[in-house]
Amino acid sequence: MDYALLLDSYVKHRDVGAWPRQRVLHECLREAIRSGALSTGTRLLATRALAQELGMARNSVLYAYDQLATEGYTRPGRQGTIVMPVSVSSPRGGATQAPAATLSRRAASLRTLAPPSGATTGFAPGVPALDEFPLALWKRTLERAWRSMPASGLNYGDPAGEPQLRAALADYLRGARGVQCDAGQVFITAGTQDSLDLCAHAFADAGDKVWIENPGYLGALAAFRGAQLKPIGIATDAHGINPDSADWRRHRPRFIYTTPSHQYPTGSVLSLERRLSLLAHARASGALIIEDDYDSEFRHDGPPLPAMQGLEDDAPVVYLGTFSKTMFPALRIGFLVTPPTLAEPLRALLARSAPSGRAAEQLALAAFVRDGQFAQHLRRMRRLYRQRRDALVAALEQELAGLGTVHGASAGMHLAFQLAGRGVSDVAVSEAARALSLVAPALSTHATGARANGWNGFLLGYAQVAAEDMGPLVATLAQLVRRAATASAMRGKP
Amino acid sequence: MDYALLLDSYVKHRDVGAWPRQRVLHECLREAIRSGALSTGTRLLATRALAQELGMARNSVLYAYDQLATEGYTRPGRQGTIVMPVSVSSPRGGATQAPAATLSRRAASLRTLAPPSGATTGFAPGVPALDEFPLALWKRTLERAWRSMPASGLNYGDPAGEPQLRAALADYLRGARGVQCDAGQVFITAGTQDSLDLCAHAFADAGDKVWIENPGYLGALAAFRGAQLKPIGIATDAHGINPDSADWRRHRPRFIYTTPSHQYPTGSVLSLERRLSLLAHARASGALIIEDDYDSEFRHDGPPLPAMQGLEDDAPVVYLGTFSKTMFPALRIGFLVTPPTLAEPLRALLARSAPSGRAAEQLALAAFVRDGQFAQHLRRMRRLYRQRRDALVAALEQELAGLGTVHGASAGMHLAFQLAGRGVSDVAVSEAARALSLVAPALSTHATGARANGWNGFLLGYAQVAAEDMGPLVATLAQLVRRAATASAMRGKP
Repeated sequence: MDYALLLDSYVKHRDVGAWPRQRVLHECLREAIRSGALSTGTRLLATRALAQELGMARNSVLYAYDQLATEGYTRPGRQGTIVMPVSVSSPRGGATQAPAATLSRRAASLRTLAPPSGATTGFAPGVPALDEFPLALWKRTLERAWRSMPASGLNYGDPAGEPQLRAALADYLRGARGVQCDAGQVFITAGTQDSLDLCAHAFADAGDKVWIENPGYLGALAAFRGAQLKPIGIATDAHGINPDSADWRRHRPRFIYTTPSHQYPTGSVLSLERRLSLLAHARASGALIIEDDYDSEFRHDGPPLPAMQGLEDDAPVVYLGTFSKTMFPALRIGFLVTPPTLAEPLRALLARSAPSGRAAEQLALAAFVRDGQFAQHLRRMRRLYRQRRDALVAALEQELAGLGTVHGASAGMHLAFQLAGRGVSDVAVSEAARALSLVAPALSTHATGARANGWNGFLLGYAQVAAEDMGPLVATLAQLVRRAATASAMRGKP
Repeated sequence: MDYALLLDSYVKHRDVGAWPRQRVLHECLREAIRSGALSTGTRLLATRALAQELGMARNSVLYAYDQLATEGYTRPGRQGTIVMPVSVSSPRGGATQAPAATLSRRAASLRTLAPPSGATTGFAPGVPALDEFPLALWKRTLERAWRSMPASGLNYGDPAGEPQLRAALADYLRGARGVQCDAGQVFITAGTQDSLDLCAHAFADAGDKVWIENPGYLGALAAFRGAQLKPIGIATDAHGINPDSADWRRHRPRFIYTTPSHQYPTGSVLSLERRLSLLAHARASGALIIEDDYDSEFRHDGPPLPAMQGLEDDAPVVYLGTFSKTMFPALRIGFLVTPPTLAEPLRALLARSAPSGRAAEQLALAAFVRDGQFAQHLRRMRRLYRQRRDALVAALEQELAGLGTVHGASAGMHLAFQLAGRGVSDVAVSEAARALSLVAPALSTHATGARANGWNGFLLGYAQVAAEDMGPLVATLAQLVRRAATASAMRGKP
């Protein structure tokens, strides 16, 4: 074996860059053993001799030999360093190769869902006005939290989240949302998707039926399918989710996922009568209600409706909230409030399955909420979003009069524009808009059951659009809708 | 209806504190309607009259009436404000109440697992030396990342994680761990548990068999049970996981979870022969290997063994790593590296099911890794942990000579002390130690199959214990072991 040649060839074909020479030698010899160039039983050259041959320090050679021995490629002995066998007993079936691993069926089942656009242009929903966030104030709050945090804050945290944040949230939710809770019922999560994954696993088993609004939130559908639940899309109209008695009889749910404050995507507000009915039926059938209150902080016409969770004592409701819309998405902090009886079991589950941390961020957020900066930011955003909502509604009424109706504009950061008649395909218009860099998601792609319960139109997020930009954007959308309506009318002619 | 009395009684029984009077009135009236004190069809007193009766501004009364109407409790009309029905059509079955919702079976199945102690005293494993972390340096890095981050960093992020961090990690893993990867195969997670949850769902379906080392890591067992997989505990000895041909024949796995660099909890290092055999068999049967390389950065006797992932081209390996041990647990950042063919499907899955963010933290970490501070910190910790390891081994050999053997001390932040003979129960001693505030988890509680494959002893974490404290702590443990051994010998006598 010409070691110098071996090394030379290895270096030529590898990007060894700044590696120390001892490492180059080690990896070169290893590859030679693995490839069979240095075969089983070969005695390696003595370290001193090899060092001389390669013009290398003997320590470098010793290092490489030690490494090979540690890794099991060689065995040092009195007779020198011997190359060990690297071939292994072949598995039964010899050279046959099974197909390579793929995604699970449950993971693959999510492929049919439209992914969120992630865009921040046009009417992309779900993202707040990021350039209006008081970033400097938040950074100072964060720095203060890091300074005042003890070293134990670097360790794993309370499985339910930092007690200060949970206490601040319980106070806030009692006062602002009518939620009946104490801090022991509050759990910090990494956002609504994390809360939904947790609910899907903690409160239902594979194969269980759960209800979701149709049309509804695809992130929830992804969480439920991913947990191998059976989501049933329940008809949702201008007053929110509307199960009929056949639904209760035939598809008894383990839990019911609903967005009563501002239904996603239609913007409907669940009526009081339906809230009470849902609570009564859920109680009677032992189902939980997962109340996703994601948009409740922004109600433009009058103060927000109180949460379903607080409508009754001991309501069978898990309440979800998030800071993704009220602060910013990258924060990745959300929360849920369980009924008192589920708090301890959920805590025990999380202690075993979900290590927690991020104490500094949670303490900063607790201070932000407790000291009033959060409320102040919400007040500013409410004013801003109301202005933007007004501008969007005005533009829609001007540009699209007669072609459809505005729906669900009383709260939140988006509204639905429902097309009149069925001739225009919201998907086709949405795709045409996309080609012009205008994001205007189609309502019908939010189907969670049969054909989106008849909703045909657009989900228009306005939080990120300046009031003066509404007109031009809506004009573009209107042009596309009118073109599609004309084409549809032509097709309809004999 | 005496409204003043109603209000008076409401205020007496509620903690209305600093509420504005309009809110007190609103909530008082709502409760009266819900309780039936103000029954359906009742006409509320005119706003002017009520304001006068209660000595309140008329605007406050108007606010309360508006709220009630918005919420659907009343209907304003020309005849005045009328109380609406709040009773709802009762569900079938009338007054029967189903049992309240409980945890799912899959969640309840985790109850039998011992939760991590979370302690930072005694030999609690899994937590690094937090007081040695260069916190000031990290805070400066974090502040710089916040300063240089564009406003888009507040939005949802790349589903796979920040590109800069993924690139820095790919470089690091190629150089330090022999992992074959580019940045496109690297995915940022919220830590190993998050990675395990993701693998359990993305790479296996409910009911699929997966392998786990016995004894093994209970966090992995929790992830697999939570995803309704069927974990099979595979015998694990002094050289790591050791499946026999019957295992391959009878329990063909969807994936194999292993900790080859430093087996948890025994500390064994998986031999090269077994690594190659596992790869060959996995390939032949189409199984993935989940290689959890959690402790590889700390190898005390010689440089770390390269990762299994890099032993072969296109190895069927998903490689997991975490910053919980090398930085600090509260950071909640880990990562995984997929085979090239799974990168795109996983990315598409995450885009639908796992919103990402935390750009500032990820960018700070990328800078920390790229600029060498991470490597420098690791070098310091390696020295420190080696000293502590040496001190612990010396203390064990002095105090517990003849009662057992030290195992798996060549790497990581913990070692295993295996008791000689079966007379002493590790669980009993561990509980006695716990009563003295000394954490020394029993190896046998890490069983993932039949009786922990015979392991009986203690999992001793030493990262947080100063070298000079090892002696006294081990002396306490030794006393408890000796007492148990004596008691066992007495029982054994006729």
